[in-house]
Amino acid sequence: MKNTYGNAVSMTIFGESHGAAVGAVLDGLAAGLPVDAAAIAAAMDRRRARGDGLSTSRTEPDEVEFLSGVVNGHTTGTAITLMVRNTNTRSGDYAKTADLLRPGHADYTAYAKYHGFQDARGGGHFSGRITAASVAAGAVCQGVLETLGIRVYTHIAQCAGVKDAPLSSAAGLVLPEPEPGHFALLDPSKEIPMQEAIRAAAKDADSVGGILETVITGLPAGLGEPWFDSMESQLAHLLFAIPACKGVEFGAGFAFAGMRGSEANDPFRMREGKVVTATNKNGGINGGITNGMPVVFRTVLKPTPSIYKQQDTVDYTHLENASITIQGRHDPCIVPRAAIVQTTLTAFGVLDLYTQRFGTEGQTKR
Amino acid sequence: MKNTYGNAVSMTIFGESHGAAVGAVLDGLAAGLPVDAAAIAAAMDRRRARGDGLSTSRTEPDEVEFLSGVVNGHTTGTAITLMVRNTNTRSGDYAKTADLLRPGHADYTAYAKYHGFQDARGGGHFSGRITAASVAAGAVCQGVLETLGIRVYTHIAQCAGVKDAPLSSAAGLVLPEPEPGHFALLDPSKEIPMQEAIRAAAKDADSVGGILETVITGLPAGLGEPWFDSMESQLAHLLFAIPACKGVEFGAGFAFAGMRGSEANDPFRMREGKVVTATNKNGGINGGITNGMPVVFRTVLKPTPSIYKQQDTVDYTHLENASITIQGRHDPCIVPRAAIVQTTLTAFGVLDLYTQRFGTEGQTKR
Amino acid sequence: MKNTYGNAVSMTIFGESHGAAVGAVLDGLAAGLPVDAAAIAAAMDRRRARGDGLSTSRTEPDEVEFLSGVVNGHTTGTAITLMVRNTNTRSGDYAKTADLLRPGHADYTAYAKYHGFQDARGGGHFSGRITAASVAAGAVCQGVLETLGIRVYTHIAQCAGVKDAPLSSAAGLVLPEPEPGHFALLDPSKEIPMQEAIRAAAKDADSVGGILETVITGLPAGLGEPWFDSMESQLAHLLFAIPACKGVEFGAGFAFAGMRGSEANDPFRMREGKVVTATNKNGGINGGITNGMPVVFRTVLKPTPSIYKQQDTVDYTHLENASITIQGRHDPCIVPRAAIVQTTLTAFGVLDLYTQRFGTEGQTKR
Amino acid sequence: MKNTYGNAVSMTIFGESHGAAVGAVLDGLAAGLPVDAAAIAAAMDRRRARGDGLSTSRTEPDEVEFLSGVVNGHTTGTAITLMVRNTNTRSGDYAKTADLLRPGHADYTAYAKYHGFQDARGGGHFSGRITAASVAAGAVCQGVLETLGIRVYTHIAQCAGVKDAPLSSAAGLVLPEPEPGHFALLDPSKEIPMQEAIRAAAKDADSVGGILETVITGLPAGLGEPWFDSMESQLAHLLFAIPACKGVEFGAGFAFAGMRGSEANDPFRMREGKVVTATNKNGGINGGITNGMPVVFRTVLKPTPSIYKQQDTVDYTHLENASITIQGRHDPCIVPRAAIVQTTLTAFGVLDLYTQRFGTEGQTKR
Repeated sequence: MKNTYGNAVSMTIFGESHGAAVGAVLDGLAAGLPVDAAAIAAAMDRRRARGDGLSTSRTEPDEVEFLSGVVNGHTTGTAITLMVRNTNTRSGDYAKTADLLRPGHADYTAYAKYHGFQDARGGGHFSGRITAASVAAGAVCQGVLETLGIRVYTHIAQCAGVKDAPLSSAAGLVLPEPEPGHFALLDPSKEIPMQEAIRAAAKDADSVGGILETVITGLPAGLGEPWFDSMESQLAHLLFAIPACKGVEFGAGFAFAGMRGSEANDPFRMREGKVVTATNKNGGINGGITNGMPVVFRTVLKPTPSIYKQQDTVDYTHLENASITIQGRHDPCIVPRAAIVQTTLTAFGVLDLYTQRFGTEGQTKR
Repeated sequence: MKNTYGNAVSMTIFGESHGAAVGAVLDGLAAGLPVDAAAIAAAMDRRRARGDGLSTSRTEPDEVEFLSGVVNGHTTGTAITLMVRNTNTRSGDYAKTADLLRPGHADYTAYAKYHGFQDARGGGHFSGRITAASVAAGAVCQGVLETLGIRVYTHIAQCAGVKDAPLSSAAGLVLPEPEPGHFALLDPSKEIPMQEAIRAAAKDADSVGGILETVITGLPAGLGEPWFDSMESQLAHLLFAIPACKGVEFGAGFAFAGMRGSEANDPFRMREGKVVTATNKNGGINGGITNGMPVVFRTVLKPTPSIYKQQDTVDYTHLENASITIQGRHDPCIVPRAAIVQTTLTAFGVLDLYTQRFGTEGQTKR
Repeated sequence: MKNTYGNAVSMTIFGESHGAAVGAVLDGLAAGLPVDAAAIAAAMDRRRARGDGLSTSRTEPDEVEFLSGVVNGHTTGTAITLMVRNTNTRSGDYAKTADLLRPGHADYTAYAKYHGFQDARGGGHFSGRITAASVAAGAVCQGVLETLGIRVYTHIAQCAGVKDAPLSSAAGLVLPEPEPGHFALLDPSKEIPMQEAIRAAAKDADSVGGILETVITGLPAGLGEPWFDSMESQLAHLLFAIPACKGVEFGAGFAFAGMRGSEANDPFRMREGKVVTATNKNGGINGGITNGMPVVFRTVLKPTPSIYKQQDTVDYTHLENASITIQGRHDPCIVPRAAIVQTTLTAFGVLDLYTQRFGTEGQTKR
Repeated sequence: MKNTYGNAVSMTIFGESHGAAVGAVLDGLAAGLPVDAAAIAAAMDRRRARGDGLSTSRTEPDEVEFLSGVVNGHTTGTAITLMVRNTNTRSGDYAKTADLLRPGHADYTAYAKYHGFQDARGGGHFSGRITAASVAAGAVCQGVLETLGIRVYTHIAQCAGVKDAPLSSAAGLVLPEPEPGHFALLDPSKEIPMQEAIRAAAKDADSVGGILETVITGLPAGLGEPWFDSMESQLAHLLFAIPACKGVEFGAGFAFAGMRGSEANDPFRMREGKVVTATNKNGGINGGITNGMPVVFRTVLKPTPSIYKQQDTVDYTHLENASITIQGRHDPCIVPRAAIVQTTLTAFGVLDLYTQRFGTEGQTKR
């Protein structure tokens, strides 16, 4: 379905970096759910570039306009369409290098797929700018989950070689909400070293990547399906739609390769009349279905492909080897801004599976 | 869509471990495509348990019966339904421990979702047995891809702590087809050490996991979509439907977290009139779309949860702590048998995206 | 999605007339729903040919085998697969006329679509035989609806020129369940005249069609969506999958063309504390959504295309004009047998929309 | 999927009558297809109200703004989003009667579904205004079909009791394109009588309905699927999304009920080396699949429910019987304006099935 995903709740995203707007249609929400403009604005703010040497100097207000589906701060029950106008575009930066395929970018694959008719300005439909739409739409879903007691939280587990405190150290899973303008970290003291490491790469005309870790708490046991619609399949499908995401792992993830079953299995125990697991190596999911423990996963985001170093490439017009030095405004590291993208896409994916089981009527405690 | 996945080509799987049969419906194939019974049987044979101490002693002939959609060895263009009868079932083994939730299994999540009406015998719908259906259906897709020059190959990159030769050492990507009954390895000399390591774990009443690596060659550039239907999203969705899969990474995967952009980017070069990349860190995919280089990814499979060691657990009927010692016949390691599951699900996922672009008519060189 | 339909509840049908079996996969049902084998057998019996001069002399026991998803007479919550083996096939009848396109049939369109690889025996995938699968699967849905107080009923409004009593004459919408082996009629006295008219056509080596009318009672107000997933769109999509169906109308249907708004509008009234409509010209649906009144619609089924009269046609092999006299066993009228097909597909379509609103959990009064 | 329909090509519609805008996302189009702004404007003009006593006096310029997916008059290959701002809204008209359920409208069903949170102004999401979005998106599809030699044409077969010339009289299927501002008729001399009949109803504070007939020419044989995705199912699904549509019939439609098979069957004949049918009673479709003859179908549209006569109804707030006299600006007849809605939705539905067979690559003669 190309730009549409989801079954009981679906999201359709659209837009190009330098087109009129980016936006999303969110469908399948019940009527009467509160839509908190301030919470959406806060999510947009966390995605926003700040022109601070850590992210692109293309900064935009990212005001979300609702075109349909929301009246008086509540959902109407019909398709919610929101858009964010593109305002700060400097397409001239790109024209200079239009023939030269940027390594690590989708320039070449866009040619292969779109025969030259793609909107090449600013990465077009491949631009990270499109995530502004998914953040806004996902933030609506996150608001719904919160009324159901389900919370999604993402922190920067690793960035530019600097690691945050491990999740296990977060006693009782107290997940600190980041201050506006600050990195999402379990250990705030890691922010300065991370920023320094990012700036060091930027100074080298280079870029860095990292790892984002998400925790979902408050999920009921029994969400997801045994095979194709496992909670893991559902979330991974969405996570690999985050630009630069090249890997997803749940629970112990790739570390399972070195374990034995006796280490990998989470023993069941009774606690306050409820079935829990003593450990959570499986990241809250057994057989594709939530077991009521926190769902935990990590994604890896590759370094931003736009770097200012000179690189070998191909001139696509003349089909000959060439070199490129990229212009324009780019993030030396996308990881901090991507945390909220991951959170909100996750919220959307969870709400879809929740609604498959409990219906649109189940989205609210009417 | 629960047990159905795919858009232009779709697969629906069904069955329980100790029910009448497991099977699949494969839809969206053009008419007149050859269905090679021998190739399907060979794929089934690679998934088959051998009762050799490495896999479960429940061995079954796994004969594939086509109920519809295939006449005279060719597709008719309508839904292909195939099934594999269950023959060698010993449900008694499970009755003894029915109340005791097996750690690492879906016993508890099945209760949470199905309120006790799940088919609990042999894992029911959660059993690895269901993969027999997806292997057969995926093998049909693999046959179609091969006529289009697209090849899917999976090797055991790591198992029980023993590593295969790295893919880069496979000069010119010569991928050796494993002999029937042997492990899929780039370096066949690793088979004996791997088997010994698996048997050592089994002797300890324990189990092991590993890593499977898949390479797809011959793909045209331009398959996949920028966001939700990226090649990565499509494949990850299917790969996380493999029981025990807890992680998926493309190209350099999680190693990207420690790289800089100048290392992560694959420079474009002209080679024999074609655009290629000098390296393949991105695993053949840029912006979610194939770039014509081999697509490369790895999955991690956790150790088989069925181990013969005594484990802490919960008695679900009495809701009290208990301990369990699992009976029945189980694989100490699922990784070698899962290689063909990964290959065939991949073939299905690729054929779906191929067909979205080229139509059912494009599935053949008529 | 070709052979799969439905969103929260989906049905996949497969099979060919002279293949191994016809069958269906029904997915999206909650666990623990009763599956009444006797009720399904009764539905199959109503679809069954009787070799009585009114329907084809190809009579089959139509035993439904459940391959998955049902244990001890209850759903397990996973995909339900059922199949009906084909037993009484005489493919030889068709070989004689294989080159000659049967007028009104799909012979030519199958060639155009499947390039000659279609299963031509007995109509292959186009045979009315496939409806055996949808009846069985739909009967499972009908059973679920009945526990929710929703009843679907179809009568033969007109057949071979003979009309049943109009629905309005059915005082208080008492809808008589037909006796096994008898026509579904509001006025049973119309059965003999209808049968005589059908036999008269058969005696002329000809066939007849008719009109089926369905009533759904007990529906809650508020099912369906304003546009693409209107109750009318949902049902019409399924009804046009009934072989020979060439028209669908809701409420007053085509008679609306001659009305004024003041006649067409159903006034709202309070009755016993509930909002009802004084008339039901709109067939229980406003704006695509049920209003709590009975949903009423009619389909027209064209005369069976297989007639024994000689007909003009084309020899597809030699691409020249020819004439054909059809052999084989065929119904002179499909309408009486199609009533249960319409009822059960309707039940499926309603259950899907019901589940979209109330979730799989809402399918039962747990 | 609620507000999204289509498989290879999909359309998502959104908006409310008095919200910010109505719009659509059209996905699945290849890159490089021409988007003819003038043709889209012409389609919009045919849907436009004229304030001439035949349609509502709410007239709006209906300017289509493309938010994404179109650059330099060509598709980019990514999701096309278009919107039409709402400008001429007078919500005050509705406030006066907000409690009173308008007979024939969705007021009551909206309450039942949306619990009072629906956007009630001007019919909200149920307003015919939303068809502005589907006309614009469908006109893009129509443009693509035209480059493939496929033409969709709709005329007013009957309106307010006045009939157009029958299709058979249209020698050689010459289908006259209506002049801007004129009714789509095979016989233009019927326009004045139709308009007079509509005005007569309006003068009586009443409204009228009618029948729209569509012809699709140039279709290749072999589009559509045997069962759920039959050409008839696909089109009927979309046609029942037209507000006021209460019936759809293909070919001879409901007249089949009175025919015998020997009349209903279309004999095949060779003509200029091609297989054709001597008659077209089946409306160009056999077994759900196009046979290369023109596809012909009719819809019935009920009279506009908004009439100025006093009507019985219910006061929903006080749950008591009441009477209503509707204010606001309304069409006494929606049929003439709906013709282009039917044409463009049909174009979309056909393009979807075409693309399923030939792929996005097949949408153009590259």
